[in-house]
Amino acid sequence: MNNFTFCTPTRYVFGHGAEEKAAELAAAAGWKKIMIVYGGQSAIRSGLLDRVKKSLDAAGISHVSLGGIRPNPTDDKVYEGITLGRDENIDAMLAVGGGSVIDTAKAIAGGIPYAGDFWDFYCGKATVNEALPLGVILTIPAAGSEGSGNSVITRLDGLRKLSLRTDTALRPKFACLNPELTFTLPPYQTASGIADMMVHIMERYFSPTEQVEVTDRLCEGLLKAIIEEAPKVMSDPQNYDARANIMWSGTLAHNGICGCGRQEDWASHFIEHELSALYDVTHGAGLAVITPAWMTYVTTILPAKVAQFARRVFDVTESDDTKAATEGIARLRSFFHSIGLPITMKELGIENPDITRLVTKLHENKGPQIGGYLPLDAKATEAIFRLAAE
Amino acid sequence: MNNFTFCTPTRYVFGHGAEEKAAELAAAAGWKKIMIVYGGQSAIRSGLLDRVKKSLDAAGISHVSLGGIRPNPTDDKVYEGITLGRDENIDAMLAVGGGSVIDTAKAIAGGIPYAGDFWDFYCGKATVNEALPLGVILTIPAAGSEGSGNSVITRLDGLRKLSLRTDTALRPKFACLNPELTFTLPPYQTASGIADMMVHIMERYFSPTEQVEVTDRLCEGLLKAIIEEAPKVMSDPQNYDARANIMWSGTLAHNGICGCGRQEDWASHFIEHELSALYDVTHGAGLAVITPAWMTYVTTILPAKVAQFARRVFDVTESDDTKAATEGIARLRSFFHSIGLPITMKELGIENPDITRLVTKLHENKGPQIGGYLPLDAKATEAIFRLAAE
Repeated sequence: MNNFTFCTPTRYVFGHGAEEKAAELAAAAGWKKIMIVYGGQSAIRSGLLDRVKKSLDAAGISHVSLGGIRPNPTDDKVYEGITLGRDENIDAMLAVGGGSVIDTAKAIAGGIPYAGDFWDFYCGKATVNEALPLGVILTIPAAGSEGSGNSVITRLDGLRKLSLRTDTALRPKFACLNPELTFTLPPYQTASGIADMMVHIMERYFSPTEQVEVTDRLCEGLLKAIIEEAPKVMSDPQNYDARANIMWSGTLAHNGICGCGRQEDWASHFIEHELSALYDVTHGAGLAVITPAWMTYVTTILPAKVAQFARRVFDVTESDDTKAATEGIARLRSFFHSIGLPITMKELGIENPDITRLVTKLHENKGPQIGGYLPLDAKATEAIFRLAAE
Repeated sequence: MNNFTFCTPTRYVFGHGAEEKAAELAAAAGWKKIMIVYGGQSAIRSGLLDRVKKSLDAAGISHVSLGGIRPNPTDDKVYEGITLGRDENIDAMLAVGGGSVIDTAKAIAGGIPYAGDFWDFYCGKATVNEALPLGVILTIPAAGSEGSGNSVITRLDGLRKLSLRTDTALRPKFACLNPELTFTLPPYQTASGIADMMVHIMERYFSPTEQVEVTDRLCEGLLKAIIEEAPKVMSDPQNYDARANIMWSGTLAHNGICGCGRQEDWASHFIEHELSALYDVTHGAGLAVITPAWMTYVTTILPAKVAQFARRVFDVTESDDTKAATEGIARLRSFFHSIGLPITMKELGIENPDITRLVTKLHENKGPQIGGYLPLDAKATEAIFRLAAE
């Protein structure tokens, strides 16, 4: 097991009516004027945004709003938010939405007190030392940003999708999670969120670090729970308990608990980020295509952990590692298909992927090698893109 | 799943040399004068205490010490610490030891700023609203107090062993966990710690709350990891990775992550507290005796979850719930025996337990009913004591 430090100070408020606690938590933290960040029309239509504003009014907290955050969020909205926040002298952020909204709010929270360009944080030129505090009302269980110190933003100029990881600077002060807010998610979005959280766990699970049984078992347990609960939310979207299990799994998948003491992988995410940056596909659906392709590639070289995954998560009984791994990948693909996800680029809507461009941009953004479990050069990532295109 | 709030702000610093970070973390938190709390001679003999003091000196932090904390810690040392802390104007606590030391430090941390008797917190007369901040250097993985807001203290007058649970007031600000510090633990103490952490998980696992697959799977995964690693630390006490897996499991077993959204049980702990208060046995060893007896009793009435435990943790394949549960209990007892733990009161060194007195004190301390999975009255707890005495 590797040395590690781990700190997750976020207060999670989970369950029926959790969103009603946000104003109370903001008031208790002494916030006076906040920026509400949200996405499209659904937060307005559902009445959620209105309820949040009323509860803030009642708590004596003034607010401004920044709406229109889109999936695969872009830097233009971050700059807009930074300007708005400075003009309005806000002292805290409240994200009402899913990962794109939260990640944008985090970028704004870090950007407002920073004298330079916020993009410096994402391309590694600067570290977030100071940020406005952030609260979250989660509406999409997927990205896990409500419990993480991370954020992913796409720069429109050049379509560079880069991720930022902080220790605690950008971890939300609180996150309100009410499973009922997820009842009306479209099935494709629910399923994509499930793939996203599963791959967040798998990026940590596939590790070159040996002797990490406790985190292995945590990862496997979470994956088994998600696989058990996923069909229930797909067939019965208003099943509160199944939604609750999925929602909490999404947070635990990415708040860092699954990665303690182990080197992580992240190749599938980096590969997928190029896909969603270039073709604007749903991130989780992209992962459902890329991750099994990545597993297929690594099985040809280093099958052991894929075989363990197959045996412990999908109950494969085959004793040969390569055969077990292959069977596990087949069951994972079958699971993704069963909840309505694509497993090829074609099913994802990308008929003729520009693999040369994808590989070039990937290594421009991430360097000549990516991946912790098995380091991958451009030849390897090209092979994975080709496996995903099949 | 039940509604819950969950917040674990403790910073964990884990790995080789973790204890060397304590002074740095204390200085970063602005602590000026701290009270070091420790147990017996081992912290002195090993040189750990001396190293800690030197690192505090080097960081410009002054300190006073309170040693001699014993297992099943008692209120006399808490009063002594409160007086010392007030006289010396200390502003923070540093516990160097295991659960007894940490629990004592927590009681002192809450007691110093409190105008009344600290015991008010333990008997439910008052709530901890203010406490001195606390850091931990852990030397015994068992109680999980390094990551919890809880503390257990025995009042010498009447031998009342009571537990206090706080949200975040008594959670350590940081906990330094170096598995190497556990290499020299006596085998019986290592094994007792393993039983304690397993039962911390099981007290949460055995819940009447339905549809909590994600926490069920976390509990089962942690238990499987402990069962896998325990024989390694027993046969090879200096196996760093096995010690690391056990140490981190002990923290996760009790920091609350296994109990989110579910009613917990705690009957086995409450029953055992009477045993260790009256006979001064090692708490974890007492649990190895009491918990299987508790499981045997509840299997006669509500076998379902015990059967799930048997199937998922010990891979029992029996389809009948009662038979599966019984086989699971046998395997748990066999596991405890295999690491050198007692499974009867006689093996624990209690030849003629005063069961009438134990039952009377238990319900005096805890009310007419205990237990979340299956509520137990005095007749039931007497039956469990008798099963444990067999």
